Amino acid sequence: MASRATMADIARQLGISKAAVSYALNGQPGVAADTRERVLAVAQDLGWHPSASARALTGSELRVIGLALSRPTDAFAVDSFFFRFLAGVESVLVERGWSLLLRVVGDNTDLEVETYRRWWGEGRIDGVIVVDERHHDERIAAIEAMELPAVLCGGPRKDVRMPCLWTDQAGDGALVVEHLADLAHRRIAHISGPRIFAHERARQRGVRAAAARHGMEVITLEGSYAAADADKLTRRLVQQGEPPTALIFGNDHMSVAGLRTLRELEIAVPEQISVVSWDDSPLTTAVDPPLTALARDTQGYGRQAAEALLDLVAGRHRGRIAVPRSALRVRSSTAIAP
Amino acid sequence: MASRATMADIARQLGISKAAVSYALNGQPGVAADTRERVLAVAQDLGWHPSASARALTGSELRVIGLALSRPTDAFAVDSFFFRFLAGVESVLVERGWSLLLRVVGDNTDLEVETYRRWWGEGRIDGVIVVDERHHDERIAAIEAMELPAVLCGGPRKDVRMPCLWTDQAGDGALVVEHLADLAHRRIAHISGPRIFAHERARQRGVRAAAARHGMEVITLEGSYAAADADKLTRRLVQQGEPPTALIFGNDHMSVAGLRTLRELEIAVPEQISVVSWDDSPLTTAVDPPLTALARDTQGYGRQAAEALLDLVAGRHRGRIAVPRSALRVRSSTAIAP
Repeated sequence: MASRATMADIARQLGISKAAVSYALNGQPGVAADTRERVLAVAQDLGWHPSASARALTGSELRVIGLALSRPTDAFAVDSFFFRFLAGVESVLVERGWSLLLRVVGDNTDLEVETYRRWWGEGRIDGVIVVDERHHDERIAAIEAMELPAVLCGGPRKDVRMPCLWTDQAGDGALVVEHLADLAHRRIAHISGPRIFAHERARQRGVRAAAARHGMEVITLEGSYAAADADKLTRRLVQQGEPPTALIFGNDHMSVAGLRTLRELEIAVPEQISVVSWDDSPLTTAVDPPLTALARDTQGYGRQAAEALLDLVAGRHRGRIAVPRSALRVRSSTAIAP
Repeated sequence: MASRATMADIARQLGISKAAVSYALNGQPGVAADTRERVLAVAQDLGWHPSASARALTGSELRVIGLALSRPTDAFAVDSFFFRFLAGVESVLVERGWSLLLRVVGDNTDLEVETYRRWWGEGRIDGVIVVDERHHDERIAAIEAMELPAVLCGGPRKDVRMPCLWTDQAGDGALVVEHLADLAHRRIAHISGPRIFAHERARQRGVRAAAARHGMEVITLEGSYAAADADKLTRRLVQQGEPPTALIFGNDHMSVAGLRTLRELEIAVPEQISVVSWDDSPLTTAVDPPLTALARDTQGYGRQAAEALLDLVAGRHRGRIAVPRSALRVRSSTAIAP
């Protein structure tokens, strides 16, 4: 494990005794008020926090992992993927007597990093799980610089030292495209989620590469994961000169909304257009026809992430960890191209 | 606010100096190992934790609320109500710079109470939001005995001192029944969630009382919130001598599953049987026909709970707080009784 700032580091920097630093940090008398202020300032600068052994002495082992989410809370409320992931994380924590410190910071990765810095600096967490990997992800270097134990749900990236839980997004994309190729579709559309996310770019690459292998044409449109976007983009796609014969949507909400739009436009699914959902959820089987969907074991993914972090905190770096591939659940929303 | 155990209490109980207690609790030298052990044991017994002022001195205000859920993690993963609630809680916390300590403990309220006791004893939380009120709820007295600031999502109960967020479940039930009475239904069924939950009992009472006022017959069956249960109970209801003409399901998953079962049995909704969902969610509008549903502002409810707890922690006890009534969203799954 990386070294952390110690009381000795603070004492050295200020040219005072370790005892004075200790008194200041523990709120004991015997140190002048201005010295205390200077100690606290330096402690914060250096990211000092109470050591695990000191905690053990006071009977309060930490056993807390942190999760800060840079998403609007409204989006958080309907994200079935994240909740299944969280359930998986919790299932590991409850087995081992750990807790989760959670904060939904809104769409602001700077605030996410600042949250980690405070939690770590104040000794509130043992490590963090980093989710929603960005294409340009400034969180990673910041987290590594503060020597906060962390695992990344994403990657692998060549500049990253933390353990990565790697998903073969391109392979998942190929699964979908090959299913549609088998059904003789030649012109398909992929309505993705936001391209700021690394996994959305990887999925687009995977869909395009597989389509190229099969000589298929792909239209790629970027959505926000919201139903309203799916409605708008679906209308645009089907009202153009030569509509695609299959639509792949980036999440369950967009898929269900797109299906509803097709019904409103009196376009038969799957007879005229096939529909595939990138995520499976209770929504995809509630609709008629039930949707062909890429299903993954999202709770299992959450479990893997929590286990990798607890291993890291215990001193075992797991490197690159492969997350199991998705399976394509073929249902009635996909059929032979018209 | 209630008084908490202090270092002086510990010193008095052991007949040693406050300074010795302080050294022991802060992991400082100058106290014998066996004394330290005794201090830690008594501190744990008394539920001692570092005071807010000591925390302020060390620059680490707590600002954490706790939420321990006694549910199986599998159920947690699909509970849209809870996630919307959590999003509401988070929206208040992020505005004020607080964090949430979360633990899903499995179906075990003893472990939930034990979790609160440890979090509070170790100074990790400022207070808790208590959800999933039970009919016999032993958590409440335990939480009040440990003088942990808490708000109850439920009640009011005459033996409870903590602030209660009170929902008029009986009134919500009356809304549904009156809608069905207007449509000339005379024989209805209510497939509830588990009767261990206080809100499910209140809903049953409300449905029965409103039905009695309108001279309607009600069959009440207890479900588990799971789709499989709804399937089984729906079959039982419609295959009996005189089936009800309307089914009220206790959550969105049961409603959607019941609708699917009716379709499999070739029973037309709403022509032969009307269906009402007690909760509204993306599921209820994804299905065909979209479901008439009791909708509440669940994010708003989470906001109210978080605000009530932060007020309590700041010294302001809000007493009984009324949560806004649900609204009935009338859609195509309910119609005139056959």
